[in-house]
Amino acid sequence: METSSDCEAMDPDALQAAERFFDAAPPLSGESDVIAQLKAFVYKQNRSEKGRPIVCVTSGGTTVPLERRCVRFIDNFSAGNRGAASTEFFLKSGYAVIFLSRTGSVQPFCRDLPERPLLDCLETAPDGSLHARPQYEQTVLSALKAHSTVVADGTLLHLHFTTLFEYLQMLGLVGSLLEGFGKRAFFYLAAAVSDFYVPWETMHEHKIQSAGGPLAMELCNVPKMIPLLRRRWAPEAFVVSFKLETDMGMLMQKAKGALLKNGVHAVVANELHTRKDKVVIIEAAGETVLTRDSRDEDIEEKIVGHLTQRHRLYLKHGNGRERASDQAAPQSI
Amino acid sequence: METSSDCEAMDPDALQAAERFFDAAPPLSGESDVIAQLKAFVYKQNRSEKGRPIVCVTSGGTTVPLERRCVRFIDNFSAGNRGAASTEFFLKSGYAVIFLSRTGSVQPFCRDLPERPLLDCLETAPDGSLHARPQYEQTVLSALKAHSTVVADGTLLHLHFTTLFEYLQMLGLVGSLLEGFGKRAFFYLAAAVSDFYVPWETMHEHKIQSAGGPLAMELCNVPKMIPLLRRRWAPEAFVVSFKLETDMGMLMQKAKGALLKNGVHAVVANELHTRKDKVVIIEAAGETVLTRDSRDEDIEEKIVGHLTQRHRLYLKHGNGRERASDQAAPQSI
Repeated sequence: METSSDCEAMDPDALQAAERFFDAAPPLSGESDVIAQLKAFVYKQNRSEKGRPIVCVTSGGTTVPLERRCVRFIDNFSAGNRGAASTEFFLKSGYAVIFLSRTGSVQPFCRDLPERPLLDCLETAPDGSLHARPQYEQTVLSALKAHSTVVADGTLLHLHFTTLFEYLQMLGLVGSLLEGFGKRAFFYLAAAVSDFYVPWETMHEHKIQSAGGPLAMELCNVPKMIPLLRRRWAPEAFVVSFKLETDMGMLMQKAKGALLKNGVHAVVANELHTRKDKVVIIEAAGETVLTRDSRDEDIEEKIVGHLTQRHRLYLKHGNGRERASDQAAPQSI
Repeated sequence: METSSDCEAMDPDALQAAERFFDAAPPLSGESDVIAQLKAFVYKQNRSEKGRPIVCVTSGGTTVPLERRCVRFIDNFSAGNRGAASTEFFLKSGYAVIFLSRTGSVQPFCRDLPERPLLDCLETAPDGSLHARPQYEQTVLSALKAHSTVVADGTLLHLHFTTLFEYLQMLGLVGSLLEGFGKRAFFYLAAAVSDFYVPWETMHEHKIQSAGGPLAMELCNVPKMIPLLRRRWAPEAFVVSFKLETDMGMLMQKAKGALLKNGVHAVVANELHTRKDKVVIIEAAGETVLTRDSRDEDIEEKIVGHLTQRHRLYLKHGNGRERASDQAAPQSI
């Protein structure tokens, strides 16, 4: 069980800021449908006799609208490859996955498909029958096979967001619904979430006009929500967050800060230009450098391998945030 | 021929601002490849005995990076449905089309496909052969058929942009290469182009940090580029621009202003929430309201029908910017 000593009470100011954010956010459209889908999925997983663990993988960038009738928005760069690849490896490792991803971002089993999958991969024979073009045949067939397996198993739920408001509201719903899973629940927060936003109540109603000259904008800080997930929504869940920076020195400092401040079990630190080849996993026990050995390999296989092992230890023994002295020494894999 | 009286010389300040923009923009990656593709396409169309007209359809939104090693950017809302649909109708009307679209935006012949076209539309039979699921069979087969026809005819060239810088640089390349087509060239500028940007030279190198508190940003106005297209790049081409606003009163005023200021042949005015049902085409001759009669109809068929008729008149007779007294009365269609 989580003890109060290593998961301190949440700073009341931070809690208030988070509550104000949700109170002022526009209502989540389709909320009752999202809840119904989540409940049905959670019910199915709970009936599974294997006590299957469940992971919520978040993926892709959030948008921040600049106008209520939104024409312009700020976006966070993320195609969603990491989340889609990780979802495939979690499924292979026996997890049920709630894949909370940005609309239009990369989807599991579709990472190797060209931009226009149907037009580029398929052709019709003179008799009207469909065929995959030879160069895509393997990719298409293996995508369909993998997908039909998870559909048959009922182990993957897709949920989509676009805005920062939608993302955080949906994360809150998933968090609260997974509370009952206790330590079996895992949050793998790979989405690129905006740090800044324009509060709904101060947002322009109409498209901002350019005739008035240059545009001065003031964006507010988004309240930190991971502490809310850790302390309120699903306090027993295993939580891993991601840090992306473009400056290596800044990255390690911020990733270590996030581990302490947010009370998560691990932070995956990645630098924009090397993120497909190398990540550093920061835990209370120390740092683990993961690198990929060849271009044919997905580094997500190693990330998911490392973290599912940690999750198993957490399920079995402790609070997953042991000090370095309690564990094997940090390693390079 | 264009006469100097109705296409005034370009304001020297505006011209200087546009030149400064291009001088300071980051170099267009893959420029020589884009030029080679354009030249091959233009050469093929020029050899066509029919004197086929050629249209450049721009589609989707441009991004404005906020950091050089870009993590965050401002984006313009546009899925790209209008440009993709219009491209299909231009091809049906006998035009060759250069489709300059945002990476990831909606593509011609793919508008009716679900978000994950391969996974959702296809299934494998027990013998391993591919089939379209019954509910998507017609959509998939007609998309493949339409696409293979334009591939065989060589009448469609796809070019992709993401940033504002890429879009404007590529538009300049297309403009200059189509100059030789004279009046046979048509620019249908449906892309949602940012009005504001951060100049490259003042842009942050690294990801902007949120620890410093709220973010104040000053964005510059993007110089107007349509006058450059009209007066420098392809002065004889038929040019139609688009205005999207969320406020109806503002929309008509701005659309009429754009017609005069930019010297284009028509402006298509559309309001964000009604844009699929109604547009107003503003020309020197007057206004034409186009509405769609049913949900099964694409309003783009009427827009393209109206404008290709105007383009034919322009090719045959005049400068396409006749006053109301020279033409049939404005009409509702």
